[in-house]
Amino acid sequence: MKNLNYLRKKLPLTVELRSDHVLIIDQTKLPGKLKFLKLKKYPDAISAIKEMQVRGAQAIGAVGAGGIFLAGYSYKKNNASDFYKYLQKIAKEIIKARPTAVNLAWGVKTILADLEITSVLKMKAEIKHRYKNILEQEVGHNLKIGEYGNTLIKSGMTILTHCNAGSLSAIWFGTATAPIFQALMKGKNIKVRLDETRPWLQGSRLTAWEMERTGIDYTINIDSAVGYLMSHGLVDMVIVGADHIASNGDTANKIGTYPLALMAHEWKIPFYVAAVSATIDFSIKTGALIKIEERSGDEILRDIRYKYQPVSPQGAKSFNPIFDITPHKLITGIITEYGISKSDALNLIKGRV
Amino acid sequence: MKNLNYLRKKLPLTVELRSDHVLIIDQTKLPGKLKFLKLKKYPDAISAIKEMQVRGAQAIGAVGAGGIFLAGYSYKKNNASDFYKYLQKIAKEIIKARPTAVNLAWGVKTILADLEITSVLKMKAEIKHRYKNILEQEVGHNLKIGEYGNTLIKSGMTILTHCNAGSLSAIWFGTATAPIFQALMKGKNIKVRLDETRPWLQGSRLTAWEMERTGIDYTINIDSAVGYLMSHGLVDMVIVGADHIASNGDTANKIGTYPLALMAHEWKIPFYVAAVSATIDFSIKTGALIKIEERSGDEILRDIRYKYQPVSPQGAKSFNPIFDITPHKLITGIITEYGISKSDALNLIKGRV
Repeated sequence: MKNLNYLRKKLPLTVELRSDHVLIIDQTKLPGKLKFLKLKKYPDAISAIKEMQVRGAQAIGAVGAGGIFLAGYSYKKNNASDFYKYLQKIAKEIIKARPTAVNLAWGVKTILADLEITSVLKMKAEIKHRYKNILEQEVGHNLKIGEYGNTLIKSGMTILTHCNAGSLSAIWFGTATAPIFQALMKGKNIKVRLDETRPWLQGSRLTAWEMERTGIDYTINIDSAVGYLMSHGLVDMVIVGADHIASNGDTANKIGTYPLALMAHEWKIPFYVAAVSATIDFSIKTGALIKIEERSGDEILRDIRYKYQPVSPQGAKSFNPIFDITPHKLITGIITEYGISKSDALNLIKGRV
Repeated sequence: MKNLNYLRKKLPLTVELRSDHVLIIDQTKLPGKLKFLKLKKYPDAISAIKEMQVRGAQAIGAVGAGGIFLAGYSYKKNNASDFYKYLQKIAKEIIKARPTAVNLAWGVKTILADLEITSVLKMKAEIKHRYKNILEQEVGHNLKIGEYGNTLIKSGMTILTHCNAGSLSAIWFGTATAPIFQALMKGKNIKVRLDETRPWLQGSRLTAWEMERTGIDYTINIDSAVGYLMSHGLVDMVIVGADHIASNGDTANKIGTYPLALMAHEWKIPFYVAAVSATIDFSIKTGALIKIEERSGDEILRDIRYKYQPVSPQGAKSFNPIFDITPHKLITGIITEYGISKSDALNLIKGRV
């Protein structure tokens, strides 16, 4: 039977607290090799984020908070007040690793929120305790998203997802994948379509790996196949993750999400965003105010997977923004740990976050 | 000054008739190497089409007609009637190399249309004469498309194109690129954005090569960046090519064209299709009747450019249709050698083809 134990065996934790280190899956090695990486010092956490060994909203947040744990763990002096200042400094440094990742800031801030300046020893213990709780709570949120999202899924449905908002983007179980895993456990007969998701191919590498391991029927397509797929009735529902949600429901997610939502709207196909409520930024009114990260153009002009061999002519320029904003009017609903909200009615969640 | 001579120096002919062979650019080697390929026998033409050494609607048509020329040229017997039958047989064989390419069938049929059964010698001479004419006429059509299309372009505009409907997709000068080259010759200050165009990367490899050689300011993006680009005002006009146009204007073109057109419609950005009139199939009423070619899923699951190394997990499935249908209501106009037509008023051309 495909229950939580089955899934737990098939999908290792993406981020795990061990006694004196943080263990993560090195996502740059997937799907070829399942390799774990020990983060021992806080710069290891920053480097894992920068090098994309960990990516995905929640996973980055968890590694960011892990960086604080590691910085604390290896702190050698005894002055509690200096320790507090040191942690604040490290927090800023970690957030800078991906400055537009709202969950990274959330993770780092949450582990330090209202931390009392007692003794270095007590503070270290408190941080470790908090870190353990954060990781557990996050998984709990993902399981809740799965339960709510599953109510939208009927047996026989084909669900399209973009990028990887799976277990690898979280501590475990994922956001966009959570309803899919839950439907699997309920014995529903579902099919999944994956956008390969250029330029990093998180879909064809990472989400495919999760589907393969858990035995879900999946088919990969290029990102721009969306028009073909939807006009031919090959998609019944779309579920994507989110990197940053404005308070009106406008959603920043991996580039390519917006064209997906527009095409789904054209063909009257339900389009859902699945995210933990920490992804909602109530300080931002609309998506127009969300800052979009640009990455190196070489990710397009060269082969990331083959020592950056050139694809394009010498002298070529490229433009590589990594998110786009899906207007809330195109979103059927946002699935969080609190339930399914109309995208323009997120205020109901605000009081609970 | 950037005139036709300048362009002719920078862009070699994609398909050229030489005394006893057909010379083509091997497009699988671009942009790294400009390598020419001699087609000496008709199976060379078929293999060049199948192996994608030549691709693009008009270029395939020209190599298909070239296959007939080569089959004729190397024919050793003297019975004119047998020769005629032989050519008909070869014609069928060539068309099968890419059965859904309307210009391939057009090229092969045009070179043989109403061929009189005289003597083998005379028939061979007639075929060579026709082939020379076809190549010249095609380039003439592309230059006309450039002149008409150029009237739509204002200095300062940024034009987005998808795949390669450039000189390499034609005998020379291209279809979607023709207005761009013409605008360049008129001294207009234009910028071009290129979709990289998965899975073969015709945009970032081939169109980029043409832009680089001719000195046009160009920037490459991933295909799914369309929502970001258009919502940020970074595109003023779209021009794409076509592989097959139904009589109502519905257009089959490289997969990804339809989402581009839908997003352009959402942002009220003019969306043009540029194609020689031979691409219009008046026997087909709507796009729903256009047969869409599927290619091997390995083009997505493996790295085409690196000995087909796996990208995805073992066991992964993929779906790889290579065209989609853009509904005519999303097309601002179709630019042919006869002028610019509203997509649903192609009948005006019908009488002239």
